[in-house]
Amino acid sequence: MTKKNLQTLKGFRDFLPEKALQREEVFQKIRTVFQKYGFLPLETPVLEYKEILTGKYGDEGEKLMYTFKDRGERDVAMRYDLTVPLARVVAQYQNDLAMPFKRYQIAPVWRADNTQKGRYREFYQCDVDVVGSDSIMADAEVIACINEALKSLGIEDIVIRINNRKLLNEKMFKAGISPKIFNGTLTSIDKWDKIGRDGVEKELSEQGMDKLQRYKILEFTEADFEIPELENYLRNFGVTNYQMVGNLARGLNYYTGTIFEFVLPDAPQYGSIAGGGRYDELIGMFMTPLPQSLPTRGREVKSGIPAVGGSIGIDRLLSALEELELIKYDLVSDVLVCNLDEALEGKYLEIVRNLRDAGIKTDFYYESSKLEKQLKYADKKNINWAVIVGSNEAKKSEAAIKSLATGKQKTVKQKDLVQTLKVA
Amino acid sequence: MTKKNLQTLKGFRDFLPEKALQREEVFQKIRTVFQKYGFLPLETPVLEYKEILTGKYGDEGEKLMYTFKDRGERDVAMRYDLTVPLARVVAQYQNDLAMPFKRYQIAPVWRADNTQKGRYREFYQCDVDVVGSDSIMADAEVIACINEALKSLGIEDIVIRINNRKLLNEKMFKAGISPKIFNGTLTSIDKWDKIGRDGVEKELSEQGMDKLQRYKILEFTEADFEIPELENYLRNFGVTNYQMVGNLARGLNYYTGTIFEFVLPDAPQYGSIAGGGRYDELIGMFMTPLPQSLPTRGREVKSGIPAVGGSIGIDRLLSALEELELIKYDLVSDVLVCNLDEALEGKYLEIVRNLRDAGIKTDFYYESSKLEKQLKYADKKNINWAVIVGSNEAKKSEAAIKSLATGKQKTVKQKDLVQTLKVA
Repeated sequence: MTKKNLQTLKGFRDFLPEKALQREEVFQKIRTVFQKYGFLPLETPVLEYKEILTGKYGDEGEKLMYTFKDRGERDVAMRYDLTVPLARVVAQYQNDLAMPFKRYQIAPVWRADNTQKGRYREFYQCDVDVVGSDSIMADAEVIACINEALKSLGIEDIVIRINNRKLLNEKMFKAGISPKIFNGTLTSIDKWDKIGRDGVEKELSEQGMDKLQRYKILEFTEADFEIPELENYLRNFGVTNYQMVGNLARGLNYYTGTIFEFVLPDAPQYGSIAGGGRYDELIGMFMTPLPQSLPTRGREVKSGIPAVGGSIGIDRLLSALEELELIKYDLVSDVLVCNLDEALEGKYLEIVRNLRDAGIKTDFYYESSKLEKQLKYADKKNINWAVIVGSNEAKKSEAAIKSLATGKQKTVKQKDLVQTLKVA
Repeated sequence: MTKKNLQTLKGFRDFLPEKALQREEVFQKIRTVFQKYGFLPLETPVLEYKEILTGKYGDEGEKLMYTFKDRGERDVAMRYDLTVPLARVVAQYQNDLAMPFKRYQIAPVWRADNTQKGRYREFYQCDVDVVGSDSIMADAEVIACINEALKSLGIEDIVIRINNRKLLNEKMFKAGISPKIFNGTLTSIDKWDKIGRDGVEKELSEQGMDKLQRYKILEFTEADFEIPELENYLRNFGVTNYQMVGNLARGLNYYTGTIFEFVLPDAPQYGSIAGGGRYDELIGMFMTPLPQSLPTRGREVKSGIPAVGGSIGIDRLLSALEELELIKYDLVSDVLVCNLDEALEGKYLEIVRNLRDAGIKTDFYYESSKLEKQLKYADKKNINWAVIVGSNEAKKSEAAIKSLATGKQKTVKQKDLVQTLKVA
């Protein structure tokens, strides 16, 4: 093993404690909100039979999938997203699941993507979905839930951009666009924020649209509009920070109704940090014939299982949180109890124990050594406070509390340490 | 895709919401305690260069490892345990890490093991280690930390069985055993609980030991003994539920000092649900020459990096918690707000919002339908309370609260719902 080979694979990352702790804290806050909204976790394996995953992600996806033969000569594949496993679970356990099935899953997926585009080959997805209801209330609840999850991380300014694929299709149809080129048209419209109005018009022209058709498309993408039922429910859920956006189309072809994305005006460079929509024709991919029990309310639902969901882009979100200075470094240990005198170790450990019993994250330096060395250790671990008891303090049952941030120090009675540090 | 193929790979599991939630809750409680003890999380990739992992687990391990060539023709392997990645991280980032490096990692590993032995091919490990300190205080802290983590899950009766490999070696040496067969002798001693005193003596005899040697070995494995330094620190950490056990040897060859395991007298069939020890010759596997900065205090430390750690067996722990009825089903949503009348949806969603704002996990039934159907849904999701507002209750601004467990029901003012459910 040479030093050169002591590395992770391209596109794979280690998260050292500081970063890993931020991630855990963020995941935990998101989970708390998801659960408050009645969503429950689902765990699926990292490896699936290859045939479960193939044919679901298009040619491009197929190329990026990690596949291999296992030791039993089975063709296996690593999880590529969280939606296809969800579809498998819904089909496999349809009699055991409470329907509508409200689940979240926060888990890594693997794609052998081009790392030069800044993409990772191992990254987390954070999905929240309602499967088995065609109620617009579910659309509103998914949006409300993601909105509150982001707020719970301290983000104040959030804009939810909303449109509806069915509405877009109707508008395109009225504009005289052939349904055959709906997807191409949507792809162009979706680039509005990147290439601007003129860029979109140029692309539409290249797709063979005449001036009147282009005019009609641009007209409806710019016009004000409402989606009263959804907006009504959003307000019921306390969500007011949304905009109806005529040029929002979102890339994926499988959306069939509501589409939405979350942007942060204070950190616009990260684009949409969450997004999703209704996709009524995907989740039933493993189910034939359709289960009779699911409601369709006369809608045309090809695969039989309506679904709506959203996904938070964890990497972008964490970058944005850092940019907005919402990553709290006091997430790490609160206190280091310094070890200055081997004869006082019993006293030190008594202090450590009292602090921990009070729920204070407390670290202790195992070796009695120079204070400077110990403060350096505390600094490296982003610890807030050092508790220092030398022989002088020990005699008076006192302890010095030093702020690692300011260097300021004060002395308190040892019996008041917990109280002092709890409010610090 | 035939129905037959709609399954997970052998040895791989889905965790549906109820189980997944239990696991998340358990992981979160363990994490909270680990952090209170100053341990911080580490995340490493699922895939590593194969050469990082090979040669570390013996022939048997090598056979069980998931390895393949990725699309770039690199030889890669799936994570087999959490210790070798820890060793890589320590070598790779030695200048960035605060030493001693106190980390925990709760993550899945993969082994193509025989599923007929009840083994899983994908399972979680939960490791907590101190790297870079040879202080016995670190041994005590790891034990104290795991002890508190188990207690935090509600387990009351825990016995920590402790021995020391170095002490065992000294005793074997004094008994006239050749160091060449130390490992074989330890393997036999370790079987004491399974094959009994006579079984151990028989095995020792088969290894060619004469009567006197056997007598001496059996004598020291049965004799009372103390390890004063460790026991002193354990008491400092508030740990009193330990026993010194002369026949505890633990299977792995790499232990060099303290060894320990946790057993539950109320659920003895699960054996040890956590264990670990000091292993001073393993973590430095990727480091030559040794870093100068690490303390050795004149001990003989072959690889240069002393370490001590423990591991909680998550699958056994969860089985034991179930057996001990410590798995709480009130972990799921607290409340289902029923939907009996479309005209009242605005009112229902107002109630939903108030409950969620108060931190109560609240689910809502999207479709107004028969109460019976909704209660069945609540039951399937292990929800505790149904909030029922029909037109009668609505007129009087009241709501009925029905316990799903007992079927009992009481009516309160809607404005008192949060308060009533918070204390329920």
